[in-house]
Amino acid sequence: MSEFDLIALIHARAATRGDVVLGIGDDAAILRVPSGRDLVVAMDTLNSGVHFPEDTAPADIGWKALAVNLSDLAAMAATPAWCTLSLSLPQPDAAWVDGFLDGFLALATRHEVALVGGDTTRGPLSVCVTVHGLVEPRGALRRKGARVGDDVWVTGTLGDAAAALRQWQAGDAIAPALRARLDRPTPRVAAGHALAGIATACIDVSDGLLADLGHLCRASRVGAALDVDALPASDTLRAAFDRDSVCTLQSAGGDDYELCFTAPKTARLAVESALFACEVPATRIGRITADAELIVLHDADGGAWSPPRRGYEHFGG
Amino acid sequence: MSEFDLIALIHARAATRGDVVLGIGDDAAILRVPSGRDLVVAMDTLNSGVHFPEDTAPADIGWKALAVNLSDLAAMAATPAWCTLSLSLPQPDAAWVDGFLDGFLALATRHEVALVGGDTTRGPLSVCVTVHGLVEPRGALRRKGARVGDDVWVTGTLGDAAAALRQWQAGDAIAPALRARLDRPTPRVAAGHALAGIATACIDVSDGLLADLGHLCRASRVGAALDVDALPASDTLRAAFDRDSVCTLQSAGGDDYELCFTAPKTARLAVESALFACEVPATRIGRITADAELIVLHDADGGAWSPPRRGYEHFGG
Repeated sequence: MSEFDLIALIHARAATRGDVVLGIGDDAAILRVPSGRDLVVAMDTLNSGVHFPEDTAPADIGWKALAVNLSDLAAMAATPAWCTLSLSLPQPDAAWVDGFLDGFLALATRHEVALVGGDTTRGPLSVCVTVHGLVEPRGALRRKGARVGDDVWVTGTLGDAAAALRQWQAGDAIAPALRARLDRPTPRVAAGHALAGIATACIDVSDGLLADLGHLCRASRVGAALDVDALPASDTLRAAFDRDSVCTLQSAGGDDYELCFTAPKTARLAVESALFACEVPATRIGRITADAELIVLHDADGGAWSPPRRGYEHFGG
Repeated sequence: MSEFDLIALIHARAATRGDVVLGIGDDAAILRVPSGRDLVVAMDTLNSGVHFPEDTAPADIGWKALAVNLSDLAAMAATPAWCTLSLSLPQPDAAWVDGFLDGFLALATRHEVALVGGDTTRGPLSVCVTVHGLVEPRGALRRKGARVGDDVWVTGTLGDAAAALRQWQAGDAIAPALRARLDRPTPRVAAGHALAGIATACIDVSDGLLADLGHLCRASRVGAALDVDALPASDTLRAAFDRDSVCTLQSAGGDDYELCFTAPKTARLAVESALFACEVPATRIGRITADAELIVLHDADGGAWSPPRRGYEHFGG
């Protein structure tokens, strides 16, 4: 099993699209961007033991490596088109790569993303993916654009993935519903697309709600006031942890890959209709304030609440 | 020093271009592909201890990480435009990243490539780069297209980088001229561009001449006969090794990042003029044969010659 055999294995399983002029198998891929579309590019790496537990199934690693990248395209309201994959493996292992591709290509197929190139190398287990999407000029959502008085929304539920990680780190049994959220996040591609023209700013929640909303606020030069009891949680999460832990996991946990976005109060019906059409639940969790970069949390009674730490950073933040 | 501090450091030093709608600092970059151009995408990872010696200077790692990717664009005759960078580091180290950027951005500036995104993560030292170039539709060179009777050419000289690696592995003093070829390869971007419309097929020499010409022959369904004594070598290489070692390093060494291309005999003057204009030397080293995928080497007297092994594979091939 050589590097070229691995590439042949990947090549044999990768689907293509009509706009792929040249896919896997040359020095580079050639892609045709339709006229009247801008290119949207995101790149994210997952390292073993840092971004996923070492015992994660290859198919789940494959799924997640593409999902976290598609989540970035979703936050920009871009339509995914192509991706490239760089896979570092301690040793060539066809069965592992086949398992990895099961998850990676299942998600790629769901979003009609063609895998068009990349490389395989020897090294500690690491997966780097670059995704390419398309968007109409000025049609992308950005972190910048939130205005004072806007509602703050979030799709789906928060905290499940972080809860699974906490159970794993504690050596406890991991609730399957939580583990599924950690291993197989759902990139909100359709929701992002539906929110274009409605939302004023958007970011995906990867490092934790407060950290990511903080990025949005910094880019928009605004602050936010959130109702911590309004943060959406799954029944499994509420059943497994006490209220304070739930709020901490929701606000500072990370790995949710939900969209956090802002929209004017006048657009509430438009937001709900747009997301209803793509069957994605969303919750209003607060409002944008003029307190630049300051995020204030309060509970249902109006009392202040703060989590023990603010989001996840790879470098021990 | 957090992940976000590192990104801010990179952001502060990265230059932009007029066709970058949105660069570093959001969930994804937005890029404007000019109408009438196809997008060319390549992605390559360098892992510490596998693709460069652990004692390599950060600036050289930065240079090389971009160079090996630009070399892939060169082989397609594409004009580089943008890149993304994923940097895995054992710990956040601003001085290391600054050194890395010295090399990376020096080469990026030379080719007017804008760094538009990526990520930084914690993990074993690894650098993954995706480059984006532009090419006219049907203007790209490919591995496919070589015809029986075509000349086989190679730019520059072969074997220097592999010689430096051999000296390093043996614990010998490394000749500076050889080490420079290992650490700071020159992607042949202008040469690739100049050869569009002249060359019939092209590949960059990264895994070793025989391995890479083998890929070209396989894609073109042809073979090749090479004159081993015609392979271009630097004076430093010839001075440091005996003739058989020189030939082995040239034909099977790898890490050269020269272009190996084919062109009709009738195009010899056109090849020489095109490459003279961009000041890149090139040498005719053989011809394309009908012996599918078979590469035969002979010396100046017509005797057969074969190297001990055929090229470099990351997975011990």
